[in-house]
Formats: sequence, C-alpha cells, structure tokens
Amino acid sequence: MKQIICIIFLLVFSLAKSQQNLIRYVNPLIGTKKMGHTFPGATVPFGSVQLSPDTDTIPYAINGNYTGTVYKYCAGYQYDDPTIAGFSHTHFSGTGHSDLGDFLIMPTAGKLQLNPGTAAEPEAGYRSAYSHSTEVAEPNYYKVLLEDHNILAELTATTRTGMHQYTFPAVDSAHIIFDLTHGIYNYDGKNVWTFIRLENDTLLTGYKQTNGWARTRTVYFAMSFSKPVLSYGFIGAKTSVYRGFWRRFEQNKNFPEMAAAEVKAHFDFKMKEGEKLKIKFALSPVSSANALQNMLIENPGWNFEQVKNDGQQQWNNELSKITVDALNKDDLVNFYTAMYHSFLGPTVYMDVNNEYKGLDQNMHRAEGFTNYTTFSLWDTYRALHPLFIIIQPGRNTDMIQSMLAHQQQSVHKMLPVWSHYANENWCMSGYHGVTVIADAVAKGNTGFDMNKALEACISTSNTSYYDGLGHYIRNGYVAEDKRPGTSVSTTLEYAFDDWAIAQAAKKLGKDEIYATYMKRSENWRNVYDSSVGFMRPRLSNGAFRKDFDVLSTHNQGFIEGNAWNFSLFVPQNPVGLISRMGGSKKFVTHLDSLFTMHLPDKFFEETEDITRDGIIGNYVHGNEPSHHVAYLYNFTHQPWKTQDKVRMILKNQYKPTVDGLGGNDDCGQMSAWYIFSSLGFYPFAPGSDEYQLGSPSIKSAALKFENGNTFFIETVNQSDNNVYVSKILLNGVTVNKHSIRHQDIMNGGKLVFYMSEKPTKK
Amino acid sequence: MKQIICIIFLLVFSLAKSQQNLIRYVNPLIGTKKMGHTFPGATVPFGSVQLSPDTDTIPYAINGNYTGTVYKYCAGYQYDDPTIAGFSHTHFSGTGHSDLGDFLIMPTAGKLQLNPGTAAEPEAGYRSAYSHSTEVAEPNYYKVLLEDHNILAELTATTRTGMHQYTFPAVDSAHIIFDLTHGIYNYDGKNVWTFIRLENDTLLTGYKQTNGWARTRTVYFAMSFSKPVLSYGFIGAKTSVYRGFWRRFEQNKNFPEMAAAEVKAHFDFKMKEGEKLKIKFALSPVSSANALQNMLIENPGWNFEQVKNDGQQQWNNELSKITVDALNKDDLVNFYTAMYHSFLGPTVYMDVNNEYKGLDQNMHRAEGFTNYTTFSLWDTYRALHPLFIIIQPGRNTDMIQSMLAHQQQSVHKMLPVWSHYANENWCMSGYHGVTVIADAVAKGNTGFDMNKALEACISTSNTSYYDGLGHYIRNGYVAEDKRPGTSVSTTLEYAFDDWAIAQAAKKLGKDEIYATYMKRSENWRNVYDSSVGFMRPRLSNGAFRKDFDVLSTHNQGFIEGNAWNFSLFVPQNPVGLISRMGGSKKFVTHLDSLFTMHLPDKFFEETEDITRDGIIGNYVHGNEPSHHVAYLYNFTHQPWKTQDKVRMILKNQYKPTVDGLGGNDDCGQMSAWYIFSSLGFYPFAPGSDEYQLGSPSIKSAALKFENGNTFFIETVNQSDNNVYVSKILLNGVTVNKHSIRHQDIMNGGKLVFYMSEKPTKK
Repeated sequence: MKQIICIIFLLVFSLAKSQQNLIRYVNPLIGTKKMGHTFPGATVPFGSVQLSPDTDTIPYAINGNYTGTVYKYCAGYQYDDPTIAGFSHTHFSGTGHSDLGDFLIMPTAGKLQLNPGTAAEPEAGYRSAYSHSTEVAEPNYYKVLLEDHNILAELTATTRTGMHQYTFPAVDSAHIIFDLTHGIYNYDGKNVWTFIRLENDTLLTGYKQTNGWARTRTVYFAMSFSKPVLSYGFIGAKTSVYRGFWRRFEQNKNFPEMAAAEVKAHFDFKMKEGEKLKIKFALSPVSSANALQNMLIENPGWNFEQVKNDGQQQWNNELSKITVDALNKDDLVNFYTAMYHSFLGPTVYMDVNNEYKGLDQNMHRAEGFTNYTTFSLWDTYRALHPLFIIIQPGRNTDMIQSMLAHQQQSVHKMLPVWSHYANENWCMSGYHGVTVIADAVAKGNTGFDMNKALEACISTSNTSYYDGLGHYIRNGYVAEDKRPGTSVSTTLEYAFDDWAIAQAAKKLGKDEIYATYMKRSENWRNVYDSSVGFMRPRLSNGAFRKDFDVLSTHNQGFIEGNAWNFSLFVPQNPVGLISRMGGSKKFVTHLDSLFTMHLPDKFFEETEDITRDGIIGNYVHGNEPSHHVAYLYNFTHQPWKTQDKVRMILKNQYKPTVDGLGGNDDCGQMSAWYIFSSLGFYPFAPGSDEYQLGSPSIKSAALKFENGNTFFIETVNQSDNNVYVSKILLNGVTVNKHSIRHQDIMNGGKLVFYMSEKPTKK
Repeated sequence: MKQIICIIFLLVFSLAKSQQNLIRYVNPLIGTKKMGHTFPGATVPFGSVQLSPDTDTIPYAINGNYTGTVYKYCAGYQYDDPTIAGFSHTHFSGTGHSDLGDFLIMPTAGKLQLNPGTAAEPEAGYRSAYSHSTEVAEPNYYKVLLEDHNILAELTATTRTGMHQYTFPAVDSAHIIFDLTHGIYNYDGKNVWTFIRLENDTLLTGYKQTNGWARTRTVYFAMSFSKPVLSYGFIGAKTSVYRGFWRRFEQNKNFPEMAAAEVKAHFDFKMKEGEKLKIKFALSPVSSANALQNMLIENPGWNFEQVKNDGQQQWNNELSKITVDALNKDDLVNFYTAMYHSFLGPTVYMDVNNEYKGLDQNMHRAEGFTNYTTFSLWDTYRALHPLFIIIQPGRNTDMIQSMLAHQQQSVHKMLPVWSHYANENWCMSGYHGVTVIADAVAKGNTGFDMNKALEACISTSNTSYYDGLGHYIRNGYVAEDKRPGTSVSTTLEYAFDDWAIAQAAKKLGKDEIYATYMKRSENWRNVYDSSVGFMRPRLSNGAFRKDFDVLSTHNQGFIEGNAWNFSLFVPQNPVGLISRMGGSKKFVTHLDSLFTMHLPDKFFEETEDITRDGIIGNYVHGNEPSHHVAYLYNFTHQPWKTQDKVRMILKNQYKPTVDGLGGNDDCGQMSAWYIFSSLGFYPFAPGSDEYQLGSPSIKSAALKFENGNTFFIETVNQSDNNVYVSKILLNGVTVNKHSIRHQDIMNGGKLVFYMSEKPTKK
C-alpha cells in the first residue's frame, strides 16, 4: 500500500513538473488602464465568481444626467485610481457596456463607515488608498495592502466561490462591510431588492435583484466567515414601506433578517495583530440554498493556499493547450495574457447540481451539458468561438447547448444576441448566435442536435419584429428611415449571418434552406452605393439617403464604425465585394488608404471603445467590424500585404503593459484575434472550415487538442523584421494557397512558415 | 355497463340530494360595508386564489402622507362604492391591516385606458359603474354587470386558479386590462418588480414582487385566454434603467416580454354580440412554470359552469360538517356565513407538486402535508383554530405542520406571529403560535411531531430580542419605558402563551418545562396595580407608570384595547384574577359595569377596527382581547350572566346585512366566536381541553366529525327570550358544571340544553 501511494505521489509530482509554469507569463493587469476594460482579480477559467477590486463606483447617471465617466468602469477597476472601494464577485472582462459588480466586501478597521466615499474625499467612506507596489495580480490570486486600514487583502476563487483572506492589525472594532448597493454601471434605482439572513454567527445567505443592462437579474449568495460575528447591523434605504409594528422592536441591529431595495450591512469582529479573517462567498443563479450547496461541495475547507493552488493548476492546464516559443518575453506575456483573457468567459452559469435560472426566470436543469452565460456574440463569433472550437471544443459545444436552451426558453424563440444572467440585453446587432452554431457544424464540433440547432437558427432569423428584420426579409435591406442609425451595418450583419445559416444547411443536406439563405446572404449588395463606392443608408422608398458622411461614425447607418470600415464587411463573399468595388487593383488602393489615411480628430472623438492608439490610419482595430480586414489582401493580387498588416497590428495594438490594449478586450475577442494571428492563421469567415493564412509572430507553437492530436507550428528565419512568408509546408507539402482547412489542423501535424524580410510577389 | 353507469348516476344523484344545499344560506356580501373587511368574490374553501372585485385603489400614502382611507379597503371592496376597478386574485378576509390584491384584470370596451381613474372621476379610467341590482355573490361565484362597458362579468375559482367569464357586446376594440401595479394597501414604491411573457397568443406567464406588509413577496402566475390575442402592449413605469439599444426597436407594442417595476398591460380582442371571453388565471408561490402546471392539472378545460359547480359542491361539503336548525332564516344566514368566513383562511400555499416558497425565499417541498399561509394568529388562536380542531382536524394539523416548517425556516427559529406569503410581518403581539400547538396537543389533534413542536414553542418563547421578551424573561414583565405603548398587553399575552406551553409540556410528560412555564404564566400579576384595580404600565425600575388612563386605548400599554378590557385577559387563571381583583362579588360588579358604562366618544374615536356598533358599553367585541370576557361570569357566583351576555352579543354584533359585522372579521375569528357561542360552548382558554358552556342560540345542530362520530346539540324551549339555561344533559346525564370536555364532544353523543326565560340562580 505504502509503495502504491509512493508511486502515485511520484507520478503526480512528475506530471506537475512536466507541465510548464505558464501562469508566470500572464499579467492580469494588462488592459486595466484606459480602454481595455479588463479586471485584475482572481478567477478560475470560465469561473462564475470573478472576484476583483473595484476602484470606483461612478454611477451611470445622477438625477437622470449621464455622468460621462461610468464607461471607464466597465470592469470596476481603473489602474490610475488611487483607492479601492472593495472587492466584488462578478465582472465582465473587456466589455463596452456593463453590469455586475455584485456583493462588494470591504474590510475596515476602526470607525464604522457604510458609504464608500469618493475618490476626491476617500476618508469620507470605507474605501482605502492602495499602491501598485503592494499589488500582486496572478491568475486566481490577487493581493493588495489596504493602506487606510493596514489590512492585507488576498483573493482567490473556485468556479462558484470566492475566497477572501484579510490579515488585520490588532483592532477591537474590525468590520466587514457588505455593500449590496454597490454595482458596476450603477444608477439610482438599479437595485431592485436585496435580502440577507444571518443563518448563524458565521453564515449569511440572501440575494440581490437588479434592473440594469440585464433587465431582471437576481443573484443568490451564501457567505461564510472563518470566525463568529460579534455584532452587526445595516442601513436599508429605498424601502418606503408601511411596516406595521416594525418599530416596536429594533430590526436594524443584531436582527438576523435584512431586506430593502438597498441594504448596506456591516459585521463586526475583534482582531489580533496579524490575525487572518477568511471569507468564503458562493454564488448561485437559482437560490441561496444552492449557493450554500455550491460552497459546501466546491470549497468546503479554509485552506486559502490550497484553493489558490488548485485554481492556478487549472490555469496551467488550460494555458498549456498551446505552448509557444516566442522571439522575446513580451510576446510570451502578450500571448498567454491573451489566452488568459480568452478564458474569462462565457462563464459557468449553473450550480453544482446542474440547476440554473432560464430566460423565463424559472429554474431549469442542464441535462448533459454545463450551462454558460455572458454571450457577447457580436464580438465573439468572429474569433473567440472559432478559437474554442480548436482548443476548447468540449466547452464550445456546451456553450452552444446553453444558447440552444436560451432559444428554447426565449418567447421570441431566438438565439442569444447579447445575453447574460438569464436575460437578453439586445446589445449590438445581428443574430450572430447562428454563426457560432454554423461554424461548429462546418467544423464538425458537433456535440449537439444539429437539426434542432439549424431550426433555432432559422427561427432566429425570421423574427420579423426584431430590429428591422421584417423589412430586411421583405425588401433585402434594413431601411434607414425605419431603423435610423444602424441600418447599413445591420443589413451587412444579417447577410453574413444568413450565409452562415446556409453553410450549416448545406452541411446537413438541406438544399432548399441553403438556397434561401444564400440568396439572403447577397443582400449586402442592396446597400452598396456604387456612385460613392461605399455601403450607404438606404430608405424604404429604395433611394439612398442623401445626407452621408463616410468618415463619421455618428448616425451614418453603422454601429461602432464608419462607412470606410464597415463597407468591407462581406466576409462571406470577399471576391464578390472586390469585384463590386471595381476589381483587385482599385480595391488594394482602397485598403491601403484605409491603413494610411488621416482620420481627423473630430471623427475619432465620436468613436467609443477605443483610444487613439486603437486606430491605425482609419483602420479601427479596437472595434470588431474590421477584424477580418487585414486578411482581405489575401483575396487580391497583393496577398503579402496581409502579412505585413497582421504583423503591424500585432505589434501596434497589443502591448504587455497596463494600457497595452487599444480598445475593449470584448470578452476575449481582441485576445482571440491575437492568438490566431500570432499563430499565422485566422477564421476569416466563421461558418466556413477555412482559415486565412497570415504571418505568425511566434517562433513555434504546439497546439494540443482534446482529440489527442498535436499540431505543431514552426517558423524558419523568424524575426521582427521578417514579417513576410516565402513558403509554407504542411506536413512537408507546400501550401499553394492562402488558406488552410480546419481538418488539416485537427488531424495534427506540422505547419512550417518560412519567413523573409521581403514579400514574395509571385 | 349501461346499468352500472345508471346505478352510479343514481348514487351520485341521491348523495347530492341527501346533502342539504347550505350555500344558499351564505351571503358573501355580509361584512362588506363599513368595518367587516370581508370580500364578496369567488373562492373555494381555503383557496389560494380568492378572486374578487376591488372597488377602489386608495393608496396607503401619497408622497409620504397617509391618505386616511386605505383602511376601509383591506379587502378591496366597500359596498357603498359606485364603481369597480377590476377583479384581483388574492384577498385577506376581515383583516385590520392589509396587502395582496394581486393581478387585477378588467375587461373594457372601446377606448383604451390604462389607469383606473378615481371614484370622483370614473370616466378618466378603466373602472366601471355597477349596481347591486345586477350583483350576485355566492360561494365560488360572483357576477356583476360592468355598466360603462356593458360587459357581464362572472367569476369562479379552483384552489389555485381563478376563472373569469366576460360576456361582451359587439365591439371591435375589446380590451383585457392587466394592471400589475394594482394592489391593496398600495403606495408609491410598493411594487418592486413585475415581469410578463406572452408565451403564445393565448398564454401569459410572469410574476410580481412587492414590498408591503410582507416585506419580500413574490407571486407567480400563468394566464390563459379562451381566444387569441390580436394585439397588445404595455406601459412600464419606474424603471430608470439604461436600456442599451432598447430604443432601436419597439418593445412596448406586440413585443412578448414586458418587465418594469410597474407594468400595466392590455390585450386586445374583437368581440361579437354576446360572445364570451374566458380567462383562467393560476397562481404559484414558486414559479410561473408551477403556476402553469397548477392550471393544467387543476383547471384544464373551459367549462365555467363545471368549475363553479365543483367549487360550490366543495362548499356544501364543508358547510355540512355542521347542520343546524335555527329559530329563523336570519340565524341560518348568520351561522352559515360565519362558517363560510371561517373557511376562507389560512389559505393553501403550495403548488400541485407540493412545492412552496419558504421564509428563506428558497423553494421547499411539503412532505406529507398541505402547506398553508396567512396566519393571523393574534386573532385566530382564540376560537378559529379551536373550531378547526373540532371540524377541520386534518387541516388544523396541516396548518401546524406549516407553522413548524415556518419555524424551521425562520432565522429566529420562531413560530409565526403574523405571517403571509413566505414572510413574517410581525403584526400584533405575543407568540400565539405556541397556543395553537398546545391546544392541538391538549385535545389530541396530533398529526405532527409533538416533541419537536414543543421545542419550537420553547425556542419561540426565548427569542430575547423579540418585542421586550428579554426583559420579560428576566424580570417577569415587559417594561413600558423599553417598549412604549403595548407593554402591558404584551406581558399578559406572553403569560397566557406560556401557560399554553406548560399545558403541552404536561401532556408530554415534561415536568420541568411545565414548572418553568407555569411560573412564567403567573407574570400577569406583575402588571396588576391593586391600587387602581387594573393592569397598568410598569417601568423598568419596577414602578408603575404615573400617567395612566383606564379608558384610553392610546399609549396606555395595551394593543387594541383599553385597561378595562385588557385587564381581564388572564384566561389561564380566571379564579386567580377574580381573587386578585377582590373576589367574586366585586368582580361581577366590575364586569357588569363594563357592559353598561358609557364610553365617551373621544375614546371610541381612537379605537381602530370597529364601528360604534362593535361596542356594548365599554365591552369591545369588535376587537379580540375581550372575546372570552362574557364567559368570565361562569367563574363567579352569577354564572347565568354569561348566558344572557352571550345571547346579547350574538344578536347585537352579528346581523345578516352588508354592514352586519361590527368589527373586522379578522380571518374568521369573529365568525368562529359566533359559531361556538351559537352552539352553546366556547374555548375559553385554548391549551385546555375544556370549553365553557354558554347559551346556544340555535334550535339544534349536528356536528359531523372526521372520526366518523356525530355530536348532536339540542335545545328545549328555545326562543329569543329564553336565553337562560336551566338544565344540561350530556347523553342523558345532567351536567353539573359550566364546562364540557373536548373528548365528550368528539366521542359523539347528544348535548341537550333546557332553555328558560329566567336564570337558574342555584
């Protein structure tokens, strides 16, 4: 017996040793300054709990007036801020609109304060100054010294629980502030209801309901202290209720039930010098009973180091799905931080017993799959889900199952547009859920009922009351006078999504459906105005709108883009587009101009989501609609320009610094672009099983697949100057085109890029 | 086969014939004028859905100012009102504070109006004039003509569903107004959240969350129309949410998701002359999925008459548990309407699958019992639950199981005080849940774990932070300076409840507990001031409060009563009280004064809950603390005075008219007093198995028990003048005392009262 244990120990030890320590290349602080909108806190891959410091609590609006600064706080944290308000348990990574920031916990010492105070007057509240010199951010670990209180804060997490470890000075009046009114994109009235019970002197349960980006969102919790609470109390604002005999006895102090629209509670302790107070905090989408069960099953003990190490091991496992060798450490940091950011969402949205809340606000059970939420599909259908198909195929089918469950629960019978926490927030445009499904069908990532999935796509694409879709179906385009502001981009997106549906139908042998949707996929032609050479808003009477500015992003018919960028959005038919725009030569000139022209400041200033750094000429990498654009050269007579543009973007738009992301990371889409492009290929048109080849920036890489195969990518003569590809060998055979098929990758093998300083103008 | 069907038919027919049609004696309109606070709508016995017209929607407060008129609308309906706002699905019967009125439906014809309008300006809203001449109110059936719209409205119900039948004139724009903002005891901010989905063109689901008397209350629904909706829309107020791209497409018209703090929706139809639109409306405490299941299982068809008849049959079954012969029809109407009112609550609070929401807001499953809610225990422990022990013993143990589940779910580990819909509203005082349990234990109504129940009683009675209880436990009384306003009545109530606990402990052989609680039960002595001969507020320093008015009900230490009434509240030890108050002679003089003295108007005016008719001298029958008082004479040398007082109260306080109840019916407590007293006995001190004998007003009665026995009560020489009892025979044997034991009744047999014009002064 002893021998066996010994052998097992050695095996585990050697396995752990054989795996590289890749988390050392991850810097969660990248993107936390300016527009990246990433968060630095603790989480496991795809974790429900993403426990992170929030540096400010700017409301969206005060008395109905937009504050103008809330946008900075999509992830709760801005690197330049001097104070931390506390640690909340849910965050989006890289979004351009926001929500969450649930259940803020802040340890304090001394005077009890139940308001956070402001950045200008931090001493007026519970917030604390901190310094980046004491800050450590690693995958699944965050540490900082809260200077005002002299409390060392450490955070870690499991999938459904957060774990806090606070090392106190000697203090008689130590407090845990539990502010349920705190939230990201908060505003007066966002908090609908908050409910807390002190079940015993170490256990709290309850929930919080908000009316924000998710219109009807309820999150349940269970919270456990490592030592008994001595006393407690709360303030409950916004509850203009007749209380009957409420006042006959005290219900705000040491009374174990608290409920109001806005509860701010405190729990008091006496701490010795260096004593640690630990907190476990479990979430559930269904009930506080489930939250408690999640805690008991997933995080039963109090060993902070163990929880941290387990999560970091999970990260190493996920990161090691691609091992790369790079030209320098910066590229490694960029690569693995991109991997890290790609694995922050969608997040698990299901209890350990498989229960979750559905769109109908009823409890559902995920049968045979893990349910996920946070589908930022306008962003992520482009490269993130394609990346998952390669290195997270199991999760990707679970995500598709989650989307299909959403569609079943939807009264519209629509796949998600932008959904989170049992809500459809209708953000952005199109119905790109269909593309995620079609891409999986095309690539054989098929752990779901494909015929049912195709039906879901068709149902989604025929919801006539959705965003101009009726007019689009009847007339071939969204009319600008009917849906002012975004009619052109929506037409282009519908047409692309329709093409993706056609691809899935073709694969499933549904020829009629294929024909119908291929026809719809050509609707991009209906908004192309050949007289100006751009896509242009068209009115319901058939005429193009007279008033039109090709540089402005404001009210010109495009969402997050101007006519220059969005007119190139026909990934389903680049050859057709080039032809329509006057042929390869004219098109290349047009593309070249995009990257080199000067965009006057006034147009940049209207553009959301990006810093000036997120723009190259008039090419906007910080927003998604141009993510395929650099690869368009592949379809022209000057394909080598894809290679230098891709390398330029990789260098220019991704830096291993806190302000290294030029635009929102958008739930991993920006990062997924980096991963693909740095490896040398890109899913130009999801729904096809083809990738466009670019120019890898890595030296070599090994992609280890769930099917057991490994795909090696190697470069010869790689350097920062040698950005052109002179030759490509796939398993020793020359590749004579600018694309590679999915199956070529998934079968395993070796792809060798020969790099050169000069383009090969064949 | 034909023969068998024939025989079955004959059997059913003769069974139905053999049962009397008792519902004809029930007039649900009794108590709907002035202070009865009963509702006239449709419900089955103990039904979850109590579907009734609401005649006004006076808010509790406008801009924080108490309107002063909301109190009239505890049941939603006041007989004198000229208009009906609509029909809502949940109502309390006879309460003195209120909540509910959920999910108002109003059919209208012509112009769409989404506000109810006011009584002064009814044409400004959807409300309609009606006339009592078109109004029919029967058990499980309500009918009225909505004159403004010329729509005949009919209502009926099953336990968990309401059914509406609206007969329309020919109208192209017919509407069903579905006002989720409507509610009883409404005020600005009471509606926390409302959520609706149109699942298909005949089915709606959703929920409503309120913050009212129940602090955190959510009710779920499913609603089905008998014909498809043509169009629909809503107004959603109080949702100051940033909507992202909400405005990009229309979401308020024909968009099947609606959510806001305050949704008012309309559903449009085209109706032919005389065409009926039917609606089924199911409730659930757990989820809209459960509500739908409740509908499908409990009310699957569209046969309105069948649903009405089934419910009326249920009523006949329940009412026929006591068949009486009376001196006149008025007495029959009083008796059976009292029976009807006694069976309106507690209400079933559980889905067909046994799921319900608990105090922790989690879903629970009732294992082996039916879960009930609406426990107005300060009222109902006195006579309603004792009545249930006799004629509804199965339901009473289910109610106790429900209370024990509440206690298990309570963070305080307390039995309900006043609870409804998964909430403790802490209304009134004491912890009378223990008495309901003790009474059941004492009387052998024991379908529950009695030792666990005793533990629940002990836990409840030791919650030191509850309403002065800590001081009471330590010092033997609640200190007026610590709990100003109700310290004396609370002391008296605690002492009585403690005695009840002692009785249960004795029955279970727990002698120590018995001794402890018997000692506590004598705490009434600590607030008796012999210098004035009344119970009196006592300060924490031991002194009686100087300032004291024995007639005032305001701030004198008593809840719903003055010192005259409440000083007599020692049901656990009437002999001790009489002795303490100077002996029988002095006590009788005191009691006589109570019934005959003049209470100046100014003191009446402070008294809530009753009309001037609810007072006899200074004896207040309309409030509960005096309900045992008439029976106190039994313990003196002039017991016959109990007999004439009881008969006087029966005559004086209960009339078969719309304003026939002098005070709130209080969830059936006033009615249960009538039933007991008219039968000749009363549960003077619940927790004891003894009933005090009074003077029956019926001619004869047969009580059919669930144990199969029947107990006959007969009178000889009964008349309105012959109010005195000269002799009593139990199964032929003379009863030589003024009480009878529970077992004597439950064994079946015959009790004969010999009535006389003159008292028998033995």
